[in-house]
Amino acid sequence: MPSGDRRGPFVSLVGAGPGDPELWTVRAVRRLEEADLVLYDALVDAAALCAVTRAPCFCVGKRAGRRSVRQETINRVMIRAAREGKRVVRLKGGDPFVFGRGAEEALALAMAGIPFEVVPGVTSATAAPALAGIPVTHRGIASAFLVVSGHTIEAFEAAVQAVRPNGVSLVVLMGLAERATVAARLVARGWKPETPAAIVCAASTSDEWTWTGSLAQLGLAQPPDGLAGVLVVGDVVRVREVLAAASSRETDDAEEVSYGRNR
Amino acid sequence: MPSGDRRGPFVSLVGAGPGDPELWTVRAVRRLEEADLVLYDALVDAAALCAVTRAPCFCVGKRAGRRSVRQETINRVMIRAAREGKRVVRLKGGDPFVFGRGAEEALALAMAGIPFEVVPGVTSATAAPALAGIPVTHRGIASAFLVVSGHTIEAFEAAVQAVRPNGVSLVVLMGLAERATVAARLVARGWKPETPAAIVCAASTSDEWTWTGSLAQLGLAQPPDGLAGVLVVGDVVRVREVLAAASSRETDDAEEVSYGRNR
Repeated sequence: MPSGDRRGPFVSLVGAGPGDPELWTVRAVRRLEEADLVLYDALVDAAALCAVTRAPCFCVGKRAGRRSVRQETINRVMIRAAREGKRVVRLKGGDPFVFGRGAEEALALAMAGIPFEVVPGVTSATAAPALAGIPVTHRGIASAFLVVSGHTIEAFEAAVQAVRPNGVSLVVLMGLAERATVAARLVARGWKPETPAAIVCAASTSDEWTWTGSLAQLGLAQPPDGLAGVLVVGDVVRVREVLAAASSRETDDAEEVSYGRNR
Repeated sequence: MPSGDRRGPFVSLVGAGPGDPELWTVRAVRRLEEADLVLYDALVDAAALCAVTRAPCFCVGKRAGRRSVRQETINRVMIRAAREGKRVVRLKGGDPFVFGRGAEEALALAMAGIPFEVVPGVTSATAAPALAGIPVTHRGIASAFLVVSGHTIEAFEAAVQAVRPNGVSLVVLMGLAERATVAARLVARGWKPETPAAIVCAASTSDEWTWTGSLAQLGLAQPPDGLAGVLVVGDVVRVREVLAAASSRETDDAEEVSYGRNR
């Protein structure tokens, strides 16, 4: 890490977690405090960012109705700023090395001779289910989980071909828009239509929205517009209902279970 | 969450990340600051814990040569303390809902009518590889990753049966001691012996130790005694070497790449 008075080219590839700035790591906050330039993704809380850093902050992620900044441009800006001696923070949603091209940015920096570090973050792949009361593994139910991107159906299909239907818990990132296709491909591949499924949108934020049902119903779910979401498919989804049922049965003061939201 | 002056039974199941307290989340730190009782796992940094909280802290995890506290005992202590009106933090290594029986603790709390929350953490499943320069996914190399526990070989074997050999990146948690068996079972199942493999021990701490080689060599690696470690199997391991080679070729001031360690 760059110590307090250290200068010179340095880029931190930092994970911002699923959304709530309280799920930033302590190191992420430190890097933002010390930054000279911040390039952040669209899902990052811009207001919280401005409260933490005095550096200029630029959103380089995809926003509704607008194209994202090209990857080559992001790389070039990072490298140029670092060469000027700036401490650059590249703040990415979730974890920088779970999808999201973080390793490509790392390779670009390495090839340009720019020292860099990776600051891991809380990935939505596990946090979004957890915040909805769904563990991705649970003794006696699932001993492994597969994380796959739904961003392109071809890559999704290839990944799903590699696993036995209903053999593991499945977490699909960036698959919300294609949820009907995702569900249809899984059923076509042999997953049971009655497999429990969940959608968790905007996990950890005030917009958090959770749906549960069966894989057969997944394509019919109607999440609110404009939110990012994670799909979960597997028997572990039932744990959410068991938790809720146990709480409502035993809690006589009508206190609700909070899996992770502010109350 | 319990607000500043809120009292009454409440348990926070909190992820502590891979080891370095700088990878705790902001919310984890807040909960520790406000806690009346902390029950923590063996891999948590006890000195950092004492610096953050004034609550009594008890290690309930497995320590070298000693058995861990029984799960039933942990549940009972959490429930009793919460019923006394204490704010209890159950601090678990990594993420509380990725292996580690966090959901079982949540179920015990729900059945006892104790309000609780889950505070997601940085899971070693993605952070340990990232800190070693290995992305679990990378465009053109791997579009999905499977996370499995090596804690019992039976569960590992069952999970691995569900995936096509070399079809996805594989991350094995709690499999360090059984690495020879893990490697042998993978090869027996059809994984190519020359598949790149890595061991990352004590990621994010000053003891961090990384080995890379082939799946065939994995059982012969000799990590330092007494450390926890993550195994990674798949072509994504090569990204680490590419990053290092690119850095050493282009960096003329002999500055080393830092994937995430303090410098």
